[in-house]
Amino acid sequence: MKGNVPVGGDHPVTVQTMTRGDTADVEASVAEIRALAAAGAEIVRVAVPGARAARAIAAIKPEIPVPLVADIHFSPALAFLAIEAGADCIRINPGNIGKHREAVREICRRCRDRGISMRVGGNEGSVMERRGIEVVELDGDPVEKMVGEVLESLAILEEEGFRDIVVSVKSHDPLDTIRAYRLVAAQCDYPLHLGVTHAGAGEPAVIKSATALGALLAEGIGDTIRVSLTGDAAGEIRAGREILRSLGLRPRRLEVYACPSCGRADVDVARLAAEVEEMVRDLAEGRELSLRVAVMGCEVNGPGEAARADVGIAAGRGWGYIMRGGRVLEKVEAGRLVERLRRHILAFTRGEAGEGAAGAREGAAPEGGGAP
Amino acid sequence: MKGNVPVGGDHPVTVQTMTRGDTADVEASVAEIRALAAAGAEIVRVAVPGARAARAIAAIKPEIPVPLVADIHFSPALAFLAIEAGADCIRINPGNIGKHREAVREICRRCRDRGISMRVGGNEGSVMERRGIEVVELDGDPVEKMVGEVLESLAILEEEGFRDIVVSVKSHDPLDTIRAYRLVAAQCDYPLHLGVTHAGAGEPAVIKSATALGALLAEGIGDTIRVSLTGDAAGEIRAGREILRSLGLRPRRLEVYACPSCGRADVDVARLAAEVEEMVRDLAEGRELSLRVAVMGCEVNGPGEAARADVGIAAGRGWGYIMRGGRVLEKVEAGRLVERLRRHILAFTRGEAGEGAAGAREGAAPEGGGAP
Repeated sequence: MKGNVPVGGDHPVTVQTMTRGDTADVEASVAEIRALAAAGAEIVRVAVPGARAARAIAAIKPEIPVPLVADIHFSPALAFLAIEAGADCIRINPGNIGKHREAVREICRRCRDRGISMRVGGNEGSVMERRGIEVVELDGDPVEKMVGEVLESLAILEEEGFRDIVVSVKSHDPLDTIRAYRLVAAQCDYPLHLGVTHAGAGEPAVIKSATALGALLAEGIGDTIRVSLTGDAAGEIRAGREILRSLGLRPRRLEVYACPSCGRADVDVARLAAEVEEMVRDLAEGRELSLRVAVMGCEVNGPGEAARADVGIAAGRGWGYIMRGGRVLEKVEAGRLVERLRRHILAFTRGEAGEGAAGAREGAAPEGGGAP
Repeated sequence: MKGNVPVGGDHPVTVQTMTRGDTADVEASVAEIRALAAAGAEIVRVAVPGARAARAIAAIKPEIPVPLVADIHFSPALAFLAIEAGADCIRINPGNIGKHREAVREICRRCRDRGISMRVGGNEGSVMERRGIEVVELDGDPVEKMVGEVLESLAILEEEGFRDIVVSVKSHDPLDTIRAYRLVAAQCDYPLHLGVTHAGAGEPAVIKSATALGALLAEGIGDTIRVSLTGDAAGEIRAGREILRSLGLRPRRLEVYACPSCGRADVDVARLAAEVEEMVRDLAEGRELSLRVAVMGCEVNGPGEAARADVGIAAGRGWGYIMRGGRVLEKVEAGRLVERLRRHILAFTRGEAGEGAAGAREGAAPEGGGAP
């Protein structure tokens, strides 16, 4: 449990993020966390770089609807303050706090007494040794070293009988991230927090997270995820949810899928799909709409793919079929396709039989044979 | 081989896409394919919905720098025309051409005689039966059915002694896609063309492709990939390359990675990273720049992560360290960071020793201990 949110076991994989503002600014932090929660963040982490930030947690906590994780580095004293302030979870980093074994024991005891969970969060970037102004990468495989440090910290917590733990072993490199989580999953059965650290910004960063987390989640590894995107917490949540949806780990509330279009298409599929998306989003506004809508531009895969959707369009030149569950409901002229689709979606969501199914008999079958 | 591009074995995984225009329009097709090749497409496929499109290939081929795949559905006659016209590879879809066993044999013989390769491309959407205007999903697991149809077609080709084959088994669902390719990889050792079909548009579609292809490529499955994006061939290539880069399957020519920023950061990391990206892109214009640049906003992971990059900034409040290979080169005031970084990158790309390393001794060491 992180606060009232279960993590691990058969519970749904959660999406989390981290605030960007100064944690010590209570009002701004509350506003930021509420906005992130509204956007879908199920757990939010805050940086705790100093005592003011740690103490601010006491004022932030009662005002927010999601569990709060305090991100602690270097300093056991800050962990004690964050525990005192009522954080739901304390994240420690074995790479920079692991040497203080006695302090880690004490953090763990205080968390146990208060029912607070801990994240043991390794990070490849902190598995370095600083010698004066030089930063030296130590000998050996950094992934194995990071995992080793995490396992050492876990052993300390276990000696205290503490098991309310989430584990992470992030690298900035997707392959190293996959390797690290596989290693740690083979050696402990705590819930795992997945992420690629310092992924950067924009599409390349989203793709790094999606390939690494996709590989792990498809193997059944991972219980909560964070996508790291420079300066874009809302984007982190959006991408995190899409990653889960893509692997069937979240219901696909509303999905419009379309063929990529090719020289075979008789219609502008991209434009038609955009119109359908807009119409469907408009319909979905303010209601729970679980719906798969297909927009297909040709006879090759169109009817087959449209058949797998709840409702769909298989478009031809100047007209299209509206389909539902494998049946052609109507043949409609191009200009009225979106409007008719809207009516059929409304009928579908009301649980009514396919409206206009009779009209289908007027339409010709999709041609089975191509030219010439 | 697809034309002069090797696919499979130890050869690099290639990125391919498909044109959107009318293949029969030779001038437009040549322009489109050239633009796609310039954007990084290594193989381009064209739809062949009719005889005019098939014949146009003869005029298109000499004008383009990449192998051309002719996408054939339903009609063996179109395959014969495309072979005659000099396509480098003929894609057939067992779901709609597989019943014509004798015709598939003949396609295969003609391809063999001319040194043309074939793609046997299954597609979940075409594994359906049409009964009049109804489209019926057949009994049984559609993934196994698709894979079964592909294996049947492969057996026909093998009976003809033909082995110059690439195989694909796409679903619109990432999990089914992963399952289908694992099944087919276990049962044949032809090179595999990976893709999630009808993924849709934008970030959700990119993420579907990245999770599915990431899982497969990380297992060593896949030799050429296509990301399907509605109406955006250039986006397909960009996303495809990023997927390969993320898994170390393409050199990371130029990579700026940045921490996501948090309450711990003393600087606006997103803005600084954007400035660095712009500067570096400008530097990279027209030259092969293999470079990893880190932009980090705090003392926790900053110096460690920056040390893994070729060059990097670990920024503090009003100043930052410029680092190279784990050494602090300079402590620079905030306003001059990007400009100084640029000089160091130029020195780095010229193979010079770290410029200004002496200056580093003036700078204080990154603090090892956090507040309070």
